[in-house]
Amino acid sequence: MLYLVRMDVNLPHDMPAAQADDIKAREKAYAQQLQHEGKWQQLYRVVGEYANYSIFDVGSHDELHTLLSGLPLFPYMKIHVTPLAKHPSSIR
Amino acid sequence: MLYLVRMDVNLPHDMPAAQADDIKAREKAYAQQLQHEGKWQQLYRVVGEYANYSIFDVGSHDELHTLLSGLPLFPYMKIHVTPLAKHPSSIR
Amino acid sequence: MLYLVRMDVNLPHDMPAAQADDIKAREKAYAQQLQHEGKWQQLYRVVGEYANYSIFDVGSHDELHTLLSGLPLFPYMKIHVTPLAKHPSSIR
Amino acid sequence: MLYLVRMDVNLPHDMPAAQADDIKAREKAYAQQLQHEGKWQQLYRVVGEYANYSIFDVGSHDELHTLLSGLPLFPYMKIHVTPLAKHPSSIR
Amino acid sequence: MLYLVRMDVNLPHDMPAAQADDIKAREKAYAQQLQHEGKWQQLYRVVGEYANYSIFDVGSHDELHTLLSGLPLFPYMKIHVTPLAKHPSSIR
Amino acid sequence: MLYLVRMDVNLPHDMPAAQADDIKAREKAYAQQLQHEGKWQQLYRVVGEYANYSIFDVGSHDELHTLLSGLPLFPYMKIHVTPLAKHPSSIR
Amino acid sequence: MLYLVRMDVNLPHDMPAAQADDIKAREKAYAQQLQHEGKWQQLYRVVGEYANYSIFDVGSHDELHTLLSGLPLFPYMKIHVTPLAKHPSSIR
Amino acid sequence: MLYLVRMDVNLPHDMPAAQADDIKAREKAYAQQLQHEGKWQQLYRVVGEYANYSIFDVGSHDELHTLLSGLPLFPYMKIHVTPLAKHPSSIR
Amino acid sequence: MLYLVRMDVNLPHDMPAAQADDIKAREKAYAQQLQHEGKWQQLYRVVGEYANYSIFDVGSHDELHTLLSGLPLFPYMKIHVTPLAKHPSSIR
Amino acid sequence: MLYLVRMDVNLPHDMPAAQADDIKAREKAYAQQLQHEGKWQQLYRVVGEYANYSIFDVGSHDELHTLLSGLPLFPYMKIHVTPLAKHPSSIR
Repeated sequence: MLYLVRMDVNLPHDMPAAQADDIKAREKAYAQQLQHEGKWQQLYRVVGEYANYSIFDVGSHDELHTLLSGLPLFPYMKIHVTPLAKHPSSIR
Repeated sequence: MLYLVRMDVNLPHDMPAAQADDIKAREKAYAQQLQHEGKWQQLYRVVGEYANYSIFDVGSHDELHTLLSGLPLFPYMKIHVTPLAKHPSSIR
Repeated sequence: MLYLVRMDVNLPHDMPAAQADDIKAREKAYAQQLQHEGKWQQLYRVVGEYANYSIFDVGSHDELHTLLSGLPLFPYMKIHVTPLAKHPSSIR
Repeated sequence: MLYLVRMDVNLPHDMPAAQADDIKAREKAYAQQLQHEGKWQQLYRVVGEYANYSIFDVGSHDELHTLLSGLPLFPYMKIHVTPLAKHPSSIR
Repeated sequence: MLYLVRMDVNLPHDMPAAQADDIKAREKAYAQQLQHEGKWQQLYRVVGEYANYSIFDVGSHDELHTLLSGLPLFPYMKIHVTPLAKHPSSIR
Repeated sequence: MLYLVRMDVNLPHDMPAAQADDIKAREKAYAQQLQHEGKWQQLYRVVGEYANYSIFDVGSHDELHTLLSGLPLFPYMKIHVTPLAKHPSSIR
Repeated sequence: MLYLVRMDVNLPHDMPAAQADDIKAREKAYAQQLQHEGKWQQLYRVVGEYANYSIFDVGSHDELHTLLSGLPLFPYMKIHVTPLAKHPSSIR
Repeated sequence: MLYLVRMDVNLPHDMPAAQADDIKAREKAYAQQLQHEGKWQQLYRVVGEYANYSIFDVGSHDELHTLLSGLPLFPYMKIHVTPLAKHPSSIR
Repeated sequence: MLYLVRMDVNLPHDMPAAQADDIKAREKAYAQQLQHEGKWQQLYRVVGEYANYSIFDVGSHDELHTLLSGLPLFPYMKIHVTPLAKHPSSIR
Repeated sequence: MLYLVRMDVNLPHDMPAAQADDIKAREKAYAQQLQHEGKWQQLYRVVGEYANYSIFDVGSHDELHTLLSGLPLFPYMKIHVTPLAKHPSSIR
């Protein structure tokens, strides 16, 4: 099942650079792992913002929440999830 | 270039059914043509709403506006366009 | 899977009473049928508003959209869908 | 009487982990106690967010406020309460 | 139990004056009846707006919804209900 | 003259408990004094929120602002004031 | 006492021009009468919008509501009223 | 002086096509006249929306309001005006 | 030219009192100087809020921005500026 | 291609002045470099706010995001990007 997910990241300004870099590195590895597994289907940067739009393809709400709440950046994110259904005009 | 586009449709209640069906049929043909051309890359229904999220892949803002304003349903739509860039963690 | 769904109804003031009553009657039958099937799990009236909060239990986004867009009142509704996951503190 | 309650949790980033874990543990125990008493009737996680939708069944506004303001996480929560009435189409 | 209720009235401009006057007259009688019964405890006009803030004192959500949805102006109103609890600093 | 006043309190998480308790005690005494004087006519807790709705009865805007800005919690409050007029259907 | 009042006018598009002109003429006369009386102290056009910001100087909320609800354009206006107090840094 | 102006156009669906085309033609002529005069300095289409962002260069607020309220489409527009000052980092 | 300016002040809670008092004193002197010069034409306190509505009379956007950004409290303010034009019904 | 970009700057109050001045100096140099290259086409200050409206002329979304996310002030900015197309009434 497909979900459109918007993630806005808001790291505290006073977080030490090393700590921030570490979280970002773990976040990247985590995201790429899920992409390779086909669960994190698409990941785009919102132009001009520390935010992304992603499309996830997973089997249930619980699975999606487990994946999202496991993001290293999760505590610093505002996330909004929109469930997507098949559009009658879609040729896919 | 990729654009995330949200379209909310709001047909007047007093529009004759035949007229509405005609517009919807032309909209479907128009949308499927653009999908076959690869410009309208993805089209999903927002669950529970007469709205869709789409991803367009076109060469310029002008081209996207021409395509969107050419939609038969355009006069009855609220549209919001978000330009998408490549995300540093994307494996695509 | 569970979804929290808010539905706000906005019937045109100039709709003939008979037509409105007919739609409402079909809506009620439709809603009660789905409740008996266990899909429309819970249905509550928002106090003071022509709106409801419902919890649906269905197998997929597509199924939910089919059910919601089949509501006789659908053309006159603003609907917002929130996917619900299991809460770690829930005893159910 | 039934109330739909949305709770969004926002723990300060600089709160020591031990303190946060302690509050969460007390919150879980508190929530499960009220669920066993039948007052906190339903508790769901909003997918992708540190938030929940709950349905409380209590005898009065005062009782609900006492329960909610007694939550260990209360100082770190944004809470919105919506009173629910019986829906004429509900079969429950 | 006390509820703060805000009501914003929005009569269609093309409603015949006689019809509007009739609804308003029935609304006034209805409101005054409930005030005499002590259920509609307080009723104030929001300065500059066709809106009011009221405090209702009734036994349950269902009773309040029955009263509010019975308002002759109900189909032309946007209503928001806020449940009120006893304040620890209140001397009443 | 009557004013509906909503007050949302937002104490900093890192404020020492003793300091917070002191402010709250002074706030309670201040509020009860004004209630005894009849200026702070009604004070209710918004269920589930560190907020209140109050009705003040004072002689002028200046007097109300003086009272509100004198609240010990004033620096930690978001306040919104709505002037109330006599409603033509009110029996008071 | 001073009130800042914002008025946004929204005349129905299908109102006959003569009717609209008549209402506007009566509105102008009404507004200028109140200005001559010193109650409608200041009246400015919001650049680019069919809206105004005004400052009223009247004795009570009730008086202001009577004046505002008596505006010929009142049924076609969205009005917001903000009570103003003396500023400690004002030299007036 | 420079003003950023956003204009959102909302023509009634039931306006006869000929009438709409006439207004649009007059709007275009009006806009191009002002551009030739250098007052309407820049005019861009918001991608996907019947809206534009423009930059006006005029001598006063009154002049801008006269120009904007003279737009043939003015009755069907929502307009927001933002005054622009010289930016300390601008090389123009 | 006239501008309506709303200023909301938000001083950090942890700012030492002496520093806050110093800024406020400089702010008051600055504001009164501009009032004496006739640029800061009117200054009112929004009842119940650490905010003001002001009317400025200055020659250009640049001049207004220079004055506003020179406010000692500027770094702690949210400011919104609305340009005002002459209203056709104004007798001033 | 043209993009309208709004940037709101929000520097932490407790940032040492020297650090803030350094970032602002690097920001100015960066902005002027891009203006000289013709990419940052226009840069205006929003009157009364630590914000700007800019028009960028770049070849792609990716290029714009690279430029914006490279701004020294980027971590302290809220940015919104609006793609602009040619307007049919524009004479440019």
